[in-house]
Amino acid sequence: MKLTTLRTGILMLFMSVSGSFAQSTPNLAEKLGYDKNAKLLIIHADDLGLSHSTDAAVISAFEKKGITSGSIMVPCPWFPEIAAFAKNNPKADIGIHLTLTSEWENYKFGPVTSADQVRSLQNNEGYFYPTVEAFGANAKPAEVEKEMRAQIDRAIAFGITPTHLDNHMGSVMVNPAFYQILIKLGHEYRIPVLIPKDMLQAAAPQFLEQIAKENIMVDHLFMLNQAPAEGNWIQPYREFIENMQPGLNQIIVHLAYNNDESRAVMIHHDDFGAKWRQNDYDLMTSDKMKSLLEENNIKLVTWHQIQNVMYPDSEQ
Amino acid sequence: MKLTTLRTGILMLFMSVSGSFAQSTPNLAEKLGYDKNAKLLIIHADDLGLSHSTDAAVISAFEKKGITSGSIMVPCPWFPEIAAFAKNNPKADIGIHLTLTSEWENYKFGPVTSADQVRSLQNNEGYFYPTVEAFGANAKPAEVEKEMRAQIDRAIAFGITPTHLDNHMGSVMVNPAFYQILIKLGHEYRIPVLIPKDMLQAAAPQFLEQIAKENIMVDHLFMLNQAPAEGNWIQPYREFIENMQPGLNQIIVHLAYNNDESRAVMIHHDDFGAKWRQNDYDLMTSDKMKSLLEENNIKLVTWHQIQNVMYPDSEQ
Repeated sequence: MKLTTLRTGILMLFMSVSGSFAQSTPNLAEKLGYDKNAKLLIIHADDLGLSHSTDAAVISAFEKKGITSGSIMVPCPWFPEIAAFAKNNPKADIGIHLTLTSEWENYKFGPVTSADQVRSLQNNEGYFYPTVEAFGANAKPAEVEKEMRAQIDRAIAFGITPTHLDNHMGSVMVNPAFYQILIKLGHEYRIPVLIPKDMLQAAAPQFLEQIAKENIMVDHLFMLNQAPAEGNWIQPYREFIENMQPGLNQIIVHLAYNNDESRAVMIHHDDFGAKWRQNDYDLMTSDKMKSLLEENNIKLVTWHQIQNVMYPDSEQ
Repeated sequence: MKLTTLRTGILMLFMSVSGSFAQSTPNLAEKLGYDKNAKLLIIHADDLGLSHSTDAAVISAFEKKGITSGSIMVPCPWFPEIAAFAKNNPKADIGIHLTLTSEWENYKFGPVTSADQVRSLQNNEGYFYPTVEAFGANAKPAEVEKEMRAQIDRAIAFGITPTHLDNHMGSVMVNPAFYQILIKLGHEYRIPVLIPKDMLQAAAPQFLEQIAKENIMVDHLFMLNQAPAEGNWIQPYREFIENMQPGLNQIIVHLAYNNDESRAVMIHHDDFGAKWRQNDYDLMTSDKMKSLLEENNIKLVTWHQIQNVMYPDSEQ
């Protein structure tokens, strides 16, 4: 290699690096066609496939444009119902809610992988552990990876084109190794992973820079963690929306009808219970929620749009 | 062995055999404390554990004494709910509805055994085959046995003391080898198996004598195979009851509430559908059904009573 060639190479490298700072790279909002300071929001329903009541409420909320996105629990008994919906409605923005825990009392589910291959994920009844703690104490990383792959592969085999990956009960957060597997699988399958920047900054700031380079993160994630005062279900959502910052935001909701099935699934669970889910459904499909979003100039987006930015060559 | 010993032995054997004919052995009805010509009847609900709606209707029917017995589908998602009921209500007469098929469109279940060990029981989605024909064409006897054992063992592990074994959709009837496995397991676990004498006589008369010696059979089994005329759900049941013969009889019913969950489970199935199951529930818990049974002097019995006659030394 001649010296001039090396010199040119170094110069080009420098220009390219400095260029990326000097030049005004469009941010996510601009890439999606919005003003750079736009407040982008994904309204996301969790737990699709959990029960018929969940599926029915979520499908209704998609139709009413009360949510932009949702993610499916592949190991659950009503998975075939929501998988058929996803297949027949390719514009519905649907990802996979990777599930490694089974928290309800009388209604259980376990791995998609052949049980013998993932014993560390199962309690002595053969179901997933009910708590994140028990999962974290027992699960082996290789088996976590095997089961996550099996759920993604199964969703794809059922005709779903997943727009994103996230995780039930945040169980993978219990162990950085599990979270790294999830992020690795996202890149391998070319599916964006929900990475909440706030939480990552608090939990593992050393990874932030690297992850920011390779992923689009959700800048601010909001999910109810306790029931709002009766009759004022909108209040915490209103606070989040009125104070929303520019960037990518996500609200996670839990939708189902408060009927016999939901009350039986969620027996002895007030938090995230049947009434809670009906309240979320009622609010997300209400005119007052739509007005709140409009008044605050919120731009609703989908994970499918994020996927097209992250993996433009696999655009569908 | 001396000749006299042999001769005595043969004589004793002869006496014992002839004695069993000469002596008036009490029949089942007499063993249960009834007149020898009593019309014994088990009113049996199938499909416990299939759905919450099924469990709720069956528990209500047990409380209203509208059924005497029921059997649980161990692979179904609501198995933990009905298992808890069975454990807490040891007097409820509950057996195992061995399940090797999964017939509903959007709500599926598969083996209890680790999937890799029973591939011949699963379609390419990993669920049981939807039809008895597909099951019969694919299932290997060794895997049928493994899965039936796993379901019985799992029920016992959940604290159930099964009073009988029967089979979902009559799938084991598709192959005499499967049926023989079921009968073998019954003897091994000391749990009576539902053997309908009528059907056995028609299907495999060569086994009748041997099976009659070793088992208590149901002399006459009745199950609706098409919906009665609207508003006259009782008619076919009335015909069976009014013409009932002495001996052991069983009526199989399918109970659930006609609610959102049932309509979703049984979507596109009118036969044995949500409305059908509500009609069965309404009739079995009605006063007119109770009157019909009383007027015809029917003696309601349970599989637990049969178990105590067949296996007296394991009486509970």
